[in-house]
Amino acid sequence: MSGGFDLAPWELRWTGLAVDQLHRTESVFALSNGHIGLRGSLDEGEPVGLPGSYLNGFYEEHALPYAEAGYGYPEAGQTVVNVTDGKIIRLLVEDEPLDMRYGRALEHHRTLDFRTGVLTRETLWESPTGRKVRVRTKRLVSFTQRAVAAIRYEVEPVEDSGPQVTQLVAQSDLLANEPIESRTRDPRVALALKAPLAAEAHHCEGLRAVLVHRTRESGLRIAAGMDHEVEAVPGLRTEISAEDDLARLTVAADIPVGGALRLTKYLGYGWSSGRSGPALRAQVEAALAGARQTGWAGLLAEQQEFLADFWEAADVEVDGDDELQQALRLGLFHILQAGARGESRAIPGKGLTGPGYDGHAFWDTETFVLPVLTYTMPEAARDALRWRHATLPLAQDRAKVLGKRGAAFPWRSINGQECSAYWPAGTAAFHVSADIADAVARYHAATLDAEFDQAAGTELLVETARLWQSLGHHDPHDGFRVDGVTGPDEYSAVVDNNVYTNLMAQKNLREAIAACGRNPRVATRLGVTEEETAEWARAADRMRIPYDDLLQVHEQAEGFTVHEEWDFEGTPAEHYPLLLNYPYFELYRKQVVKQADLVLALHLRGDAFDLEQKARDFAYYEARTVRDSSLSAGTQSVVAAECGHLDLAYAYLAEAALTDLNDLHHNVANGLHMASLAGAWQAVVAGLGGMRDYDGKLTFAPRLPSALDRVAFRMCFRGTRIQVEITAAEATYRLISGDPIPAAHHGQAITIDGEVTLPIPAAPEFPTPKAPSGRAPRRRTKAGDSHPEEA
Amino acid sequence: MSGGFDLAPWELRWTGLAVDQLHRTESVFALSNGHIGLRGSLDEGEPVGLPGSYLNGFYEEHALPYAEAGYGYPEAGQTVVNVTDGKIIRLLVEDEPLDMRYGRALEHHRTLDFRTGVLTRETLWESPTGRKVRVRTKRLVSFTQRAVAAIRYEVEPVEDSGPQVTQLVAQSDLLANEPIESRTRDPRVALALKAPLAAEAHHCEGLRAVLVHRTRESGLRIAAGMDHEVEAVPGLRTEISAEDDLARLTVAADIPVGGALRLTKYLGYGWSSGRSGPALRAQVEAALAGARQTGWAGLLAEQQEFLADFWEAADVEVDGDDELQQALRLGLFHILQAGARGESRAIPGKGLTGPGYDGHAFWDTETFVLPVLTYTMPEAARDALRWRHATLPLAQDRAKVLGKRGAAFPWRSINGQECSAYWPAGTAAFHVSADIADAVARYHAATLDAEFDQAAGTELLVETARLWQSLGHHDPHDGFRVDGVTGPDEYSAVVDNNVYTNLMAQKNLREAIAACGRNPRVATRLGVTEEETAEWARAADRMRIPYDDLLQVHEQAEGFTVHEEWDFEGTPAEHYPLLLNYPYFELYRKQVVKQADLVLALHLRGDAFDLEQKARDFAYYEARTVRDSSLSAGTQSVVAAECGHLDLAYAYLAEAALTDLNDLHHNVANGLHMASLAGAWQAVVAGLGGMRDYDGKLTFAPRLPSALDRVAFRMCFRGTRIQVEITAAEATYRLISGDPIPAAHHGQAITIDGEVTLPIPAAPEFPTPKAPSGRAPRRRTKAGDSHPEEA
Repeated sequence: MSGGFDLAPWELRWTGLAVDQLHRTESVFALSNGHIGLRGSLDEGEPVGLPGSYLNGFYEEHALPYAEAGYGYPEAGQTVVNVTDGKIIRLLVEDEPLDMRYGRALEHHRTLDFRTGVLTRETLWESPTGRKVRVRTKRLVSFTQRAVAAIRYEVEPVEDSGPQVTQLVAQSDLLANEPIESRTRDPRVALALKAPLAAEAHHCEGLRAVLVHRTRESGLRIAAGMDHEVEAVPGLRTEISAEDDLARLTVAADIPVGGALRLTKYLGYGWSSGRSGPALRAQVEAALAGARQTGWAGLLAEQQEFLADFWEAADVEVDGDDELQQALRLGLFHILQAGARGESRAIPGKGLTGPGYDGHAFWDTETFVLPVLTYTMPEAARDALRWRHATLPLAQDRAKVLGKRGAAFPWRSINGQECSAYWPAGTAAFHVSADIADAVARYHAATLDAEFDQAAGTELLVETARLWQSLGHHDPHDGFRVDGVTGPDEYSAVVDNNVYTNLMAQKNLREAIAACGRNPRVATRLGVTEEETAEWARAADRMRIPYDDLLQVHEQAEGFTVHEEWDFEGTPAEHYPLLLNYPYFELYRKQVVKQADLVLALHLRGDAFDLEQKARDFAYYEARTVRDSSLSAGTQSVVAAECGHLDLAYAYLAEAALTDLNDLHHNVANGLHMASLAGAWQAVVAGLGGMRDYDGKLTFAPRLPSALDRVAFRMCFRGTRIQVEITAAEATYRLISGDPIPAAHHGQAITIDGEVTLPIPAAPEFPTPKAPSGRAPRRRTKAGDSHPEEA
Repeated sequence: MSGGFDLAPWELRWTGLAVDQLHRTESVFALSNGHIGLRGSLDEGEPVGLPGSYLNGFYEEHALPYAEAGYGYPEAGQTVVNVTDGKIIRLLVEDEPLDMRYGRALEHHRTLDFRTGVLTRETLWESPTGRKVRVRTKRLVSFTQRAVAAIRYEVEPVEDSGPQVTQLVAQSDLLANEPIESRTRDPRVALALKAPLAAEAHHCEGLRAVLVHRTRESGLRIAAGMDHEVEAVPGLRTEISAEDDLARLTVAADIPVGGALRLTKYLGYGWSSGRSGPALRAQVEAALAGARQTGWAGLLAEQQEFLADFWEAADVEVDGDDELQQALRLGLFHILQAGARGESRAIPGKGLTGPGYDGHAFWDTETFVLPVLTYTMPEAARDALRWRHATLPLAQDRAKVLGKRGAAFPWRSINGQECSAYWPAGTAAFHVSADIADAVARYHAATLDAEFDQAAGTELLVETARLWQSLGHHDPHDGFRVDGVTGPDEYSAVVDNNVYTNLMAQKNLREAIAACGRNPRVATRLGVTEEETAEWARAADRMRIPYDDLLQVHEQAEGFTVHEEWDFEGTPAEHYPLLLNYPYFELYRKQVVKQADLVLALHLRGDAFDLEQKARDFAYYEARTVRDSSLSAGTQSVVAAECGHLDLAYAYLAEAALTDLNDLHHNVANGLHMASLAGAWQAVVAGLGGMRDYDGKLTFAPRLPSALDRVAFRMCFRGTRIQVEITAAEATYRLISGDPIPAAHHGQAITIDGEVTLPIPAAPEFPTPKAPSGRAPRRRTKAGDSHPEEA
């Protein structure tokens, strides 16, 4: 069992109902292809934790209130909208509605299969008056047909169920403006989201219906359609109807024991800011026609094929920890779901699994999620970066408003406009632009995709480099300073020379120079001169990196190491996360770190530190990092592994991987933490595998913690698929497909071609770092003993 | 003429109507005694710029909205309420309403007399149909009867006005929930203030009426009453009426040429959070009875006597600049009005002259206004500090919420609760607590008021010292650091070791030790131990004061002098004030100063700097200070004078004094800038007079700018009143009343007893500092040539 789920390597199963856990299971069982997202709620709609159907990029707008306004504050907020719900199929058994809260559920389980991409539900239900039915449903959101989801629904009366035949009535709905409990304290936002969809049109005919709506403020139009196939049985009656916010196919039949009512529901979604209602309706009806043409079996087969290809490129195997094995595959499956078919839309922090963070995308995408996609499904990484490129005009406008050159990408957004209402932890966190540049450079190095490089990549690098050039200044003594910005650690803000930011900016400037060198015509088109690239080089070379000579550690930002220490001993466990119990001013002025910041620099810019320095820096910040953010454990795992703290790396890896399964942050109801799931992948691949890609060179330095017997992971690099297999003593590099590629094993150059096995050198020995009192990760030892604290 | 007003030494007169200037003249002509404030609107209510009647401490509450909330953010805002308007006396002349926008105003002027404390209005008006009347009114808000205001109203038909007699009807109103244009963009605040007063009771009888109301959210109750004396004329008819929001005395008479309709209106106000409607009504009726007992002539006489005493203690004379002379007396008059009878209520930033800053009190009071009152009307300073002491429990609660010991006084408030919704420029500006301590120490030194010291002063010093002790920490290298706070300069925020803050905290800690030494029993009651005072002393002694060794100047806060320079040359004039045109992040990270910060430390903690250092620091910050705040010019004047830049000091003095008369900040409509007016006094007394009071010792270092022939000012110290008279060559110190007092003249110890005249040494010669491009104050030369730029 893991967090209430049954353990299995390739699936996730929940047995029983547990109404109070529905909000969790709905998030974990959410299906998505990056374009459509359907939370894993029960077919019959109720009981429900939090209903949710989302379309990537579809949001409502509302005014952002400020008691004290300021120049350049964003005026409009954006919130993801729960769109027309097509998942609902209600069932009446001899006039009694199937509701799992009543009668008896003799059997009930739901299973998400990572290889078929299908969510299955099986229920044997006895109605309050004693009629028994078995309900089997399968649900998928198609990876191959982006606008399509489908549900296979099957009900059988069960023997001894009374009379010869059972009257079954199924109602298959499209429901708009579903009642939903408000999650906001702001009355204006609540109002905007209460019934966000204004009806524009409804159509129905035969077994098909379409509803067209439009949001009131953002003016986005959506069409949702459903079509059905109903298996013929004697006396079957169907009836279709549609009104503003509801379309319904009613299917009624008297089914004998041994018989079944079976129907397939196809869902199609489309949205647009510009296209008309009729155009959108046509688009959705075409998607439905395509889905019916493929058919349920065809959709299943496509789904399976798509996933087989993904797992060939991306699978991670762990021997010795079944819970971790399952969690890692679940995480990869959800990252795939979030990114597969986003196609020039953002990948939100929660994917499309819940309304958390208002559905916004953050730097999480580029820094945590895109590395996974870059090395497992590079075209998805490319598409996410294309979204950033599509929003470049907005980022350029934002830079202008802020008095800067180039492009300032938003801290949080759905459509590319800045939506952060608290500038010290929003606008000031300029590192998001360097993070995007980093993702562009990584994608380029891993794919050598010249087309993207010319069409989008170089421009993204140039415009972000221009931002840094105008944000910083040369001080006669200190070099090139970037003052008054906020780094990843949200318990510090508006600081001078944040090391992470400055090192990422340095890389950004250098990558821009390299990209202009590769693409001189693009550079010319962008107005880049030799003087400009010389300025970038000078800024990068003189970039200030504050260092405490006495303590021999880097300062997270200037002055950090002379700030007051946080009283961890005096901070009770229930005061975490600290931001809910201490004012920002107190957090900002003390040495307390919410999430890896300098330690993230040790990973992403590890080329700027030697190993001894990394070990000292890691130990220093480890003692001050409370991990109040889910973005931290994966990075701490990576750096712990590099510094030889392999058991600690393993503990952080497990924490990152299990964040959502075990609901460690008590908010999985609002959606999964994509960055944490991605962090778990990083902890395996960059942590235990020691994979780095500095300067576009692929290197490994694998090592296992004592608790694991074997770890194997797959990845792609420049069209080649490889597998790295690690045991305690040695590592094997295996070519799966494509051309041989150069790499390195613990500093030794190798070529991955066929299979090469090399011994693993002993780990460096540095003193074990200490976490703040009460904030150490759960120690994880041999399997079967995974949570000794719970014993 | 000064800003449209006629020049005169003891009065301010505006001739003509100028509807578009009404908002200005209403503020400047506002009458107040610190308890009641009546804006200087026309008796007949219209035309009006911004109607306003205020009671000190009477406010409505509203929720503060946050798009992204945070721990410890204040939830409720407070806004001063325009209370029941009793100023209104409407007139109908033969059925035509007197409205200055119609007919013809043949003569019209309004005059505020600084020695009588009366606002006079004289109008000769011809109605659209040609009837002429002369209206003479006088209005006062009594300094001696705190709850009382009074109006003398007189109308005469003028010869050739047609028929033998003119029918005159006067309507004397009490009007609640006066329509008022909303000044806020927040719909919730606008709603709260639209009709803030809920009617509870109304009464009328004879010539007297009372209305009782209550605010909806803050639950404060107000009673407003009026009584009248009407001069008997044949055929006079009066009628009184009252309803929820209106009480009215109607007086009608047919008046012949040579005759007059004369009435006196007495206004009484009372409010309470706890007392009942009948109790408040009784209180107001008693005040009205008292006022009638004194009578109009009596009120006038009391007013004059009160002011004569004030001017004896406080007058400032300037020979050689009539405009400045008038402005300085106007400023003193308004400071007196703001503070005279506040009696344990706050002195708001705008006094009671307008709704600006929501009627909140800031550090302005203690740092700028209280020094004036301490040396001219010390009991008013004491009362303002008693208000702070009364709010100590709220400040202690706030400190607790923030995880600190002692008391954290609010950045802005009406009732003592923090109302600042932007913490980097609110909560983080902890210096307000040291400013209060400074005012307590100054008041004590200037009065030796042992009773206040024991009842309130020592506790204020101890509780603020405790705040600093818990805000700072000892760093092994840097001493005692106070990190993450905001100093006076609002273009920097959340900085480490702001010099001003740290020096004021240092003084706070030392004054607390001294107060505990004076009052050991109080100290014991407050739980102060020897260990605690030793800790205070250690913190004060080790207080970190950042200094740039290379530039040889103090850093306003750590790192300030390595920040990027602001591009003043590239900043167009219309981009000031900068905060309306640049984001905070940009302002905070660059070397641009909104208002004196380090320079204020050079004044208030001048004992911590030598003169050469002051000159260097002043020049450095002068080049970076844009004066986007009205709190700056006075301080720049003081320090300029000390550094020998006397013409510059003079320019800043004039700017501070004329801020409101010339509406330099384009917002005098919302009320006067009390701190700027007080800053002008400082510029005379501490600037040209060189008055300092370090360690409670009174010293002078007078010097005149070349444009002035003579400056004389009066002040009180420990019960003694003195005059200091300055000419180019010498200074005369004169005892006016009380015991002789020790002082110093340019470092030479003197005793002020009778009259002592001493020569003035030559000014130090430092290079003239430069202001940022376009931000220098207006050069001011010999009188009659005061604004050469306008020539």
